[in-house]
Amino acid sequence: MHIDLIRSSSSKSLPQQISGTLAQRIRSGLLQPGARLPSVRSLAVSLKVSQVTVSKAYAELERSGMIICSQGKGCFVANPELFKQSEGHSWQEHYNDYLPRAQLWRNFKDSEVKYPFHLAAIHSGLLPLEQIGATMAALVTAQPELMATYGNFQGDPDLRETMRAHLLARGIKLASSDLMITSGTQQGIDLVARTFVGPGDTVYLEAPSYTGAIDVFAGRGAEMIFVPMDEEGMKVDVLTRLCDERPPKLIYTAPTFQNPSGVTMSMARRQRLLEIVRSYRCLLVEDDPFSDLYFHSPPPPPIKSLDTDGHVVYMKSFSKVLAPGSRVACVAAGGDILSRLIAAKSASDLGGPLLTQRAVLPFIAKKYDAYAAELRMILRRRMELADKLLKRYAPPGVTWNLPEGGLSLWLELPPSQDIGRLHELAGQQGISFLPGDVCYAGHTPSRHIRLCYSQMSEEDMQQGLASFLDLLDKYLS
Amino acid sequence: MHIDLIRSSSSKSLPQQISGTLAQRIRSGLLQPGARLPSVRSLAVSLKVSQVTVSKAYAELERSGMIICSQGKGCFVANPELFKQSEGHSWQEHYNDYLPRAQLWRNFKDSEVKYPFHLAAIHSGLLPLEQIGATMAALVTAQPELMATYGNFQGDPDLRETMRAHLLARGIKLASSDLMITSGTQQGIDLVARTFVGPGDTVYLEAPSYTGAIDVFAGRGAEMIFVPMDEEGMKVDVLTRLCDERPPKLIYTAPTFQNPSGVTMSMARRQRLLEIVRSYRCLLVEDDPFSDLYFHSPPPPPIKSLDTDGHVVYMKSFSKVLAPGSRVACVAAGGDILSRLIAAKSASDLGGPLLTQRAVLPFIAKKYDAYAAELRMILRRRMELADKLLKRYAPPGVTWNLPEGGLSLWLELPPSQDIGRLHELAGQQGISFLPGDVCYAGHTPSRHIRLCYSQMSEEDMQQGLASFLDLLDKYLS
Repeated sequence: MHIDLIRSSSSKSLPQQISGTLAQRIRSGLLQPGARLPSVRSLAVSLKVSQVTVSKAYAELERSGMIICSQGKGCFVANPELFKQSEGHSWQEHYNDYLPRAQLWRNFKDSEVKYPFHLAAIHSGLLPLEQIGATMAALVTAQPELMATYGNFQGDPDLRETMRAHLLARGIKLASSDLMITSGTQQGIDLVARTFVGPGDTVYLEAPSYTGAIDVFAGRGAEMIFVPMDEEGMKVDVLTRLCDERPPKLIYTAPTFQNPSGVTMSMARRQRLLEIVRSYRCLLVEDDPFSDLYFHSPPPPPIKSLDTDGHVVYMKSFSKVLAPGSRVACVAAGGDILSRLIAAKSASDLGGPLLTQRAVLPFIAKKYDAYAAELRMILRRRMELADKLLKRYAPPGVTWNLPEGGLSLWLELPPSQDIGRLHELAGQQGISFLPGDVCYAGHTPSRHIRLCYSQMSEEDMQQGLASFLDLLDKYLS
Repeated sequence: MHIDLIRSSSSKSLPQQISGTLAQRIRSGLLQPGARLPSVRSLAVSLKVSQVTVSKAYAELERSGMIICSQGKGCFVANPELFKQSEGHSWQEHYNDYLPRAQLWRNFKDSEVKYPFHLAAIHSGLLPLEQIGATMAALVTAQPELMATYGNFQGDPDLRETMRAHLLARGIKLASSDLMITSGTQQGIDLVARTFVGPGDTVYLEAPSYTGAIDVFAGRGAEMIFVPMDEEGMKVDVLTRLCDERPPKLIYTAPTFQNPSGVTMSMARRQRLLEIVRSYRCLLVEDDPFSDLYFHSPPPPPIKSLDTDGHVVYMKSFSKVLAPGSRVACVAAGGDILSRLIAAKSASDLGGPLLTQRAVLPFIAKKYDAYAAELRMILRRRMELADKLLKRYAPPGVTWNLPEGGLSLWLELPPSQDIGRLHELAGQQGISFLPGDVCYAGHTPSRHIRLCYSQMSEEDMQQGLASFLDLLDKYLS
């Protein structure tokens, strides 16, 4: 396998980088239980490091129980029960790839479980599927030729005009030519990463951050540095000190009802963050799926609304709030940054389908605001119900913050819990959650779990949460 | 900008690699007319090469007329009339990217032209849009919740089962678990490249090859080597000799009615190619959009049908033949290669939309074969009409081969023609074509152009072709 080593890294030694990447590959299911690791000698040769360095990395992995080494036989990935061996063809094991991590893949499974708390999504009964579906049925009947054409790489001009008005109402003043439509925000993040991030480039993220973004930056060989947060969001003073040492190529933030922590960045921090980005002449990716889903008062304006010189690439997901299967998100950038992103979009999929873009357009133009107003009331009630159950049944030592908006709760468990084991036990009862580990890049275990309160019906959510808290109580005692 | 230099390259010197990449960026519209190039000194420092090397590269670009250098002021991209200056924000010019080439983007424009011969596509009047549209309207009305879910990353199991049967009828025996659905073949190629190709890896392609594949491999920093073709396809003996010197990481081929040349690889070459791939333990990407569109007898079986140990990643586009806007293609691989591609798919867009997958399913299952049989008759007639016009009106020195299937003709013009100028003149008359240059990675000018005979109505195609040949005659004399 290919491992991007950052020889100038101040934060991580070479053995740490090697063991960290191998651990990620094992956790991602890319190196499967029972698979043999390359010999110390051959890995040392291929990575151009000393055998001592590789030995240290393997020793660290063995200490953590992820691999088992035996004299003469070599090292193997442990825990065969976690993942079933794929049939495979033997030569493929040695065919090098550039995929250091894929945690999203492993934690997103088709929810066969009864109580899917792991996915940050909205229950289908709450989504305006019938309205969008009716538009789509009418469109495809009247104009089947909408399916005949490759979409415009930048996205349908009419939908971009609708998005322009939508963003203007939220303080972001741009032309529709400054916008691009992507297959969900995931593709937007991926396009930014493939276009602007390469091996050894420094990317700053909040600790914790969105798994799908971490996967993508890891795939580009970036050095990711996680900046701690407090109740005002990313600690910008810490970021400033870190940037002095390692200038940022890019900063990724979700400032509003952050996924997974639920924290919202204060206005002062937003301004300060933009100043940092300006002074380093780098990009800020502002991922904003949830700002319309506030429970009390509207959050501070997007950082993009303060951006005068194209430093912020702003991403707004519509698929999450309207119809995940529509895969429609909007990316706002400007100048050369945007044109390079459009070129990258063309190489990745020749543009998104036109029909779906036209199908969501009327809803976004005319009904979105009223729908969002109603949805936030429903989500607030969900959150309050979950909070009530937690207050009543959560075992001592379990803490959480009440989010001001969004879809999920971020729980902290008492120290030294084996969250992997808890995840397994919950799974046996048909309950899933997102283990906090996947929201970091390192292999320091996290004590957090994320629970989404909006993916089930209200009754199921309450039943599932009560069962989970019961399990948690037994598990902790 | 970032340039991946291959210091061990036997085929290209460092100045050639630098001037080649800059030329590609200029042709791709990524470096815009009037833009200032980095100074010789600063580019030398950032690429870790001598100033002499950069000076040689700039001198080559100046000789070819792509840039203009003046003492004291520096070097600038020439031909300001070719591309309009974007507004831009000054800092962005210096923000490094990893996008060496984007020719697809530049040559795919929304066809505002009257006679779009440039796009290899099928006229909407010939596509089964109403049938697929009716299925989609019925589906979205009966089951709007199909839009609620994220699709399975690997693709809908029911559609995969349909694809399995479809491929079996064409000699490819696989399980539906060996298949993945992608957003068109473009995404399939991109997923393979991002997963398995990295800087300096050697990728072999046919000369000429598909622009969108060249863009993608260039974006990964691959060393691309173009293997000449004859009437039996890629010259596998030449490939063998080249591989001795530079072992392949991956070989990309479109063996049947190759885009753009129209050539079909013989059975003997297919077998030999698979042997090479086996002996080097590498991947073969077999891109097969057109094999159902044969004019006389069926082409030889896909290489994938001979593959017993997962060396071939086979890609079949359905969007091209059924509905480009549906963005549905099928990728057949196996073992670990496939699972790594699925992981990569999750990071790039969280999976494709379920609704479109279900909407094309019944047509592929039940009506595709009869439709393809009819379509090939229509396309054959188109091709013959185009051939007749060429025979009558093509100026002396213009040659072409009659393709045995597919959508386009590959014309060779007499030596030393300025195809860029011809492209411009044609554009002024509302006629577009694909300049052969974009089907190679180098900056040696090609004498070829590709004309698609299936993208317009029969009448328009004939009128447009007659006008073009008239223009060509005047241009050449």
